[in-house]
Amino acid sequence: MVFKKVSRIKIPEATIRRLSLYDRCLEEFNKGGKKIVSSSDIARKCGTNPAQIRKDFAYFGEFGVRGVGYYVENLQEDIKRALGINRSWNCALVGAGNLGFALLGTDSLAKRGFRISAIFERDPILVEMGSFQDIPMFSMADMHRVISEFGIKIGIIAVNPETALKVSHDLIDAGVKGILNFTPATLKVPPGVIMRNVDFAIDLEGIAFQLHNE
Amino acid sequence: MVFKKVSRIKIPEATIRRLSLYDRCLEEFNKGGKKIVSSSDIARKCGTNPAQIRKDFAYFGEFGVRGVGYYVENLQEDIKRALGINRSWNCALVGAGNLGFALLGTDSLAKRGFRISAIFERDPILVEMGSFQDIPMFSMADMHRVISEFGIKIGIIAVNPETALKVSHDLIDAGVKGILNFTPATLKVPPGVIMRNVDFAIDLEGIAFQLHNE
Repeated sequence: MVFKKVSRIKIPEATIRRLSLYDRCLEEFNKGGKKIVSSSDIARKCGTNPAQIRKDFAYFGEFGVRGVGYYVENLQEDIKRALGINRSWNCALVGAGNLGFALLGTDSLAKRGFRISAIFERDPILVEMGSFQDIPMFSMADMHRVISEFGIKIGIIAVNPETALKVSHDLIDAGVKGILNFTPATLKVPPGVIMRNVDFAIDLEGIAFQLHNE
Repeated sequence: MVFKKVSRIKIPEATIRRLSLYDRCLEEFNKGGKKIVSSSDIARKCGTNPAQIRKDFAYFGEFGVRGVGYYVENLQEDIKRALGINRSWNCALVGAGNLGFALLGTDSLAKRGFRISAIFERDPILVEMGSFQDIPMFSMADMHRVISEFGIKIGIIAVNPETALKVSHDLIDAGVKGILNFTPATLKVPPGVIMRNVDFAIDLEGIAFQLHNE
């Protein structure tokens, strides 16, 4: 399959989200030694249906090989290319609190191509450590210089909600184009900057819905 | 609008997710003093379109008042009832590490009706503290008894990935029906148990996709 570069068609956010999930399912097929899969195989593993999968893939161009299916590794590469994660992204983590350290303590971001290459923290005692797990740690005052020098495009906000708005402005001023906001603060970003809010309660609400309606 | 209790129709997960988002948008309208909104108002705030909103609502029965729109507070109540969050849910947090403390440090779960009423931790020094922010803390060995006594239905797994599988079995044995898994471990649950995996990288991939395709 050849995933074409997306042109002017607006691709639904849900499709993008599902591409991420398909990629994770394919990873499991790959680990299990499977070379070729059908859309039904992927659907079963991902808990969706084959028609949805084909519809999602159709946004990106051609399908798998007719009568054969999808080559797992090729499809993974194609999805990664479509998502823009066939490369690594330099990220900045702002806030070395509990959540920040939890993020630093997992390799799940790095595995998906998101490398935290700088940490910004307002507590001078932490900043004095100089680095954490070989990732350099800076004061907030260094943000503009470091982000530009490191070519950082994505900022992860893990500070307290009161500070989040100022941090988002500083990140954008420094050249960041994408923001992942872990705080409940409502942040507005100018056109050209992408923001996503992480809200753990949404997943719990999905669980509650199903428990409630059983 | 009267949201009916869902019967046999399968409601897409994306619809449930959007209901959570609509509820958050309505919360903002409410705070801003707005009493009545149209589906276009909601669509603009949530970044979707009015047709999608009406389609999502249609799963639950009748629409707002024709020519008037939706009463913000009523609609919020109806959505909360549909999601099953017009009540509070007792949750157990397993793992008092960085992520666990980050979850305990925010009120965003409690605000949405998810009350962490017990913490389980394997480090005896932490367990000896007895409680954290008035939430009782127990050893893993107490899980079965406490979950049943407290009537806990949802378990939040914030341990290291190596321990996650055993924890999920213990939670389910103890009577938990919903699991939010923060670890990258792949967990399988028996029928009747709902599981959601939290994967921060998925949101970053959504950002990467948009940055990549601009």
